[in-house]
Amino acid sequence: MLVVQKFGGSSVANAERIFNVANRIIETYNKGNDVVVILSAQGDTTDELIEKAHEINPNPSKRELDMLLSTGEQQSVALMAMALQKLGYNAVSLNAAQVGIITTSVYGNAKIKTVGKERIMQELSRKNIVLITGFQGINRYDDITTLGRGGSDTSAVAIAAVLNAGLCEIYTDVDGVYTADPRIVKDARKLDMISYDEMAELASLGAKVLHTRSVEVAQKYNVELVVRSSLTRAEGTIVKGEYGVEKMLVSGVASDKEQAIITIEGITDTPGRVFKLFSMLERENISVDIIVQSNKAEDISFTVVSADVPSVMEVLEKNKAALGAKNIMFEDKVAKVSIVGAGMATHPGVASLMFEALYDAGVNIKMISTSEIKISVVVDERDVENAVYSIHEKFNLASKNMRKS
Amino acid sequence: MLVVQKFGGSSVANAERIFNVANRIIETYNKGNDVVVILSAQGDTTDELIEKAHEINPNPSKRELDMLLSTGEQQSVALMAMALQKLGYNAVSLNAAQVGIITTSVYGNAKIKTVGKERIMQELSRKNIVLITGFQGINRYDDITTLGRGGSDTSAVAIAAVLNAGLCEIYTDVDGVYTADPRIVKDARKLDMISYDEMAELASLGAKVLHTRSVEVAQKYNVELVVRSSLTRAEGTIVKGEYGVEKMLVSGVASDKEQAIITIEGITDTPGRVFKLFSMLERENISVDIIVQSNKAEDISFTVVSADVPSVMEVLEKNKAALGAKNIMFEDKVAKVSIVGAGMATHPGVASLMFEALYDAGVNIKMISTSEIKISVVVDERDVENAVYSIHEKFNLASKNMRKS
Repeated sequence: MLVVQKFGGSSVANAERIFNVANRIIETYNKGNDVVVILSAQGDTTDELIEKAHEINPNPSKRELDMLLSTGEQQSVALMAMALQKLGYNAVSLNAAQVGIITTSVYGNAKIKTVGKERIMQELSRKNIVLITGFQGINRYDDITTLGRGGSDTSAVAIAAVLNAGLCEIYTDVDGVYTADPRIVKDARKLDMISYDEMAELASLGAKVLHTRSVEVAQKYNVELVVRSSLTRAEGTIVKGEYGVEKMLVSGVASDKEQAIITIEGITDTPGRVFKLFSMLERENISVDIIVQSNKAEDISFTVVSADVPSVMEVLEKNKAALGAKNIMFEDKVAKVSIVGAGMATHPGVASLMFEALYDAGVNIKMISTSEIKISVVVDERDVENAVYSIHEKFNLASKNMRKS
Repeated sequence: MLVVQKFGGSSVANAERIFNVANRIIETYNKGNDVVVILSAQGDTTDELIEKAHEINPNPSKRELDMLLSTGEQQSVALMAMALQKLGYNAVSLNAAQVGIITTSVYGNAKIKTVGKERIMQELSRKNIVLITGFQGINRYDDITTLGRGGSDTSAVAIAAVLNAGLCEIYTDVDGVYTADPRIVKDARKLDMISYDEMAELASLGAKVLHTRSVEVAQKYNVELVVRSSLTRAEGTIVKGEYGVEKMLVSGVASDKEQAIITIEGITDTPGRVFKLFSMLERENISVDIIVQSNKAEDISFTVVSADVPSVMEVLEKNKAALGAKNIMFEDKVAKVSIVGAGMATHPGVASLMFEALYDAGVNIKMISTSEIKISVVVDERDVENAVYSIHEKFNLASKNMRKS
């Protein structure tokens, strides 16, 4: 069987951990599998390189930043090859250019278009363990691109899809996908399985277990994933398509503190102005999440990730007159708390149960957003732990009996 | 004019030095030149990466080591591009794969075969300052190779040759090529000019100003080089072909402490055995320099670089019986002191003057080797400074009057 394994940066942070991972790779190889391994940059390497760049240029070109950052993964794969060779196994490291991981042209946030099979298959046929740089690709100009934070997950899934791998394991520093962040909720329970749809929502809601785009790619190409720990022998969580009639009402609670609310007062509610507002943000590559427009007042509020606040404020202040805005404000001590569950669509009581939990906990809700399989609320940042804990309790997520409501 | 500039690792060791170099590049660019810059890895990066590799595998595969080491130059060029952009100039960084620097397949010590012009010319036509990773290439398997220590000089010369550059400047941390190491001889004089032949000898004799192979390539393609300091405004030394009738009797004195003498006692002097001896060393990629075979005794001695002693001893001990050797010994506290001069061939008195200088200084000679334009002696390591100083004095190299003898 062809097995694709992905190990994150903390799993390869130092020589000891590299050997730990090498031994797990060898275990899989010794069972007669072909093994393709995708690695991230070691530990804090990416952050250190960004810091180095900022020391020289606080606003470096994204092309050059990608050129710089991509060296981190190249170091990881070379070092892992050396570790495997030291343990007596044949291994070869390949970067994105060598494999032919072709992406869109957007530096810093590229999407994988195609992955070359030829070189990988050639190395596998020579009985090599193949180590591939995650997080990066090359675009049609032959320039190096990166896939955004956590992009190595997406590299692994895309490679597994192209190779038609029998198994795609995403190794991380947690045992799998939990019903809530175990650091917040002590009796959070590890899920055995979760659907692509639910995982995609959880990933984008700040669960940080998988890169959002990796789940989309897995779903598109029907790549079954296993999320598991590189430090323990625990079974992990399987991420796959529909898994039978027993849809979970609520799979988990996620929270994300990197949120901010932007409020524009006095914007006249004409379709043209609202369109203008969001298209000018889109041009700056700013993703807007929840949007709330009040009927009475001429106000509009929306959430963005905290890091985007400076650029959002700059764009809006520059266009204040054009938008007819009176006041532009931001609030960045806020967080998003969400519940996700495939069974939610057919159970209208879920939202009210969530709100009841928040009421019980004395948490004030600032904004609400719902979809088929998730409900998100924006709350004060200091209420996050309390909110997550109460919701987890209310839905009795620690037990497998999900039909409480 | 198209100008190629190469800056070494110490010139780009930190943000401040990167900006210093950036300003020199801009100066050249602002004179209306097309500028192509070749950079080494920052400061001690290469050594640090080697250390990291050795921590994992004391004997890493050379392919993987090259994969690892090549990241150092990629970081340099990306950071320099950011610095130039910060100063308001268009710049683009390119690695060896992007340029198409094709080398032989020998990892760790590859030779450049061809350099692609297309991408460089495209970037120059867009008025970009082009920054290229030194020290590395790709071989016909699409794998990354490196050119050996100091290889960035060779990258620069090869690129200058292909682009038919009007000027190729090698920036280093010294003002140019001196008649002796200025740290040993205080009144060592900077040469205005030196021929390729002399420079090649000096480089290979441990002058460390230029990579030996870079001088060969410069000579082959007739690329005129200027060796100068990135820290001062001094004129530097021009390295070119024949420069008229005034050949210098002796251009300079070089010394190299990284030498060791290997002596094999009792090896029967049959052509077969000597051939066998040196071909087995060649197979291990070990370069033998000076060879001395005594007529009376059945002994043979030769020099190698100190770093090769462990592998030489391993090979020899393994083949002791086959060689018919009684004893194999090494002596690594030795050094090579050499004089180089294009005029030497026609002045037979040079050797005896050198020996006189050593005799005056009380330095014992262990081995002697001569060529058309150089004389080398092997001496005790602790005598090096004394030997260099005496020879420099004897030939009156501090003054331009070279015809003393």
